[in-house]
Amino acid sequence: EIAAAVQGLLERGPLAGLRVLVTAGPTREAIDPVRYISNRSSGRMGYAVAQACREAGAEVVLVSGPTALAPPPGVRLVRVESAAEMLAAVEAEVDACAIFIAAAAVADYRPAETAPAKIKKRAQRLGLELVRNPDILATVARRRPRPFVVGFAAETEAVEANARAKLAAKGLDLVAANRVGPGIGFDREDNELTLIWEDGAEPLGRASKLELARRLVARIAERHGARDPAADPGSAPRP
Amino acid sequence: EIAAAVQGLLERGPLAGLRVLVTAGPTREAIDPVRYISNRSSGRMGYAVAQACREAGAEVVLVSGPTALAPPPGVRLVRVESAAEMLAAVEAEVDACAIFIAAAAVADYRPAETAPAKIKKRAQRLGLELVRNPDILATVARRRPRPFVVGFAAETEAVEANARAKLAAKGLDLVAANRVGPGIGFDREDNELTLIWEDGAEPLGRASKLELARRLVARIAERHGARDPAADPGSAPRP
Repeated sequence: EIAAAVQGLLERGPLAGLRVLVTAGPTREAIDPVRYISNRSSGRMGYAVAQACREAGAEVVLVSGPTALAPPPGVRLVRVESAAEMLAAVEAEVDACAIFIAAAAVADYRPAETAPAKIKKRAQRLGLELVRNPDILATVARRRPRPFVVGFAAETEAVEANARAKLAAKGLDLVAANRVGPGIGFDREDNELTLIWEDGAEPLGRASKLELARRLVARIAERHGARDPAADPGSAPRP
Repeated sequence: EIAAAVQGLLERGPLAGLRVLVTAGPTREAIDPVRYISNRSSGRMGYAVAQACREAGAEVVLVSGPTALAPPPGVRLVRVESAAEMLAAVEAEVDACAIFIAAAAVADYRPAETAPAKIKKRAQRLGLELVRNPDILATVARRRPRPFVVGFAAETEAVEANARAKLAAKGLDLVAANRVGPGIGFDREDNELTLIWEDGAEPLGRASKLELARRLVARIAERHGARDPAADPGSAPRP
């Protein structure tokens, strides 16, 4: 009976019949076989988004960097480590997806070279040359046809201005913006999000990451549903 | 009855009456409020050593960098993030300890400066200037009086030669050496250790990290027991 109820929800939810691709977690960029550059993303927001999409009836693929989290039930997990691996996994999946939600905190830079053996600590100072990583979100947003594209903007300052600049520069459909720093954002159970789109903004308030993810996914379903279906490569025929 | 048996073991174990300080996990060295440099240490070996010391009757203080692990029962956990924080925590505890076991994979280098706000990704290339971190193990080994000092050497190549050089250069009592790299060492349940001391070596074989930790702690108890007690700041009177 419970199984039937869940099945009914999956069939009738606002994302029923759609495949959604979600990225989550940090990436790790190797300096040598043991050292790496990463960031404080716990992956919780992305995993909550994947769970909320599943609850809304979507078929969900979650491409995740290293986290300590268990994948939400019913979600297909693809584990990756570096930004390059994440891009390859996303490109392999995205053509079949109607919606792309980039919640991963992809490392912007990686070491220009990865040393094949552990670097010995001889020098008192060491210069590490970093190069830009591929921009996974912008790469997906440039595809034609392309899915409905949602980005996150984690900022320590000027949150809405930076988020709106990101929306415009990358040609996104929606940005979920939040402030990070001591006491909020990364590695916390709760979060505070504001949605930004071309001609509007809506604060989603402060709540648990799962509750915010459900609010976010409800807005994504509305805005995706209002979009021209011809632009949509991954939507199955709706009943 | 079980509680009494455990209590008896703690009172009669080979480390009964001794306080042991164990470090574990990686450290994280902040580049800015969200990005950091770290390494692949899971903390499992250090946590296993702390557990094995407790099983051997010691009072255990575990100073740990960021890990996803629960502390072993009966062990006092002190959480730190950077190498500087780990050194401060160790210096606050070490005078009261008879044995110091440095299982942490302390970052050798940290960024010369930590940016106060998230670095924007404007440049295609970025030079990151790194400086040497304090050497916690060598710092403790230079103290007079000092505890019995055990180091780990995680090497990708020339394991025993590098471990013996570390023993001599830092003036350690014992080094537990292992090879790390794809398929062995970091982020794995099992491990392979070889003990190195001034006039000898002993392979402990390949086993689970907890089993290896128990073998290691048995050897530490033997070698510590054979040492001049006058050199020993933290040993309580033995019955």
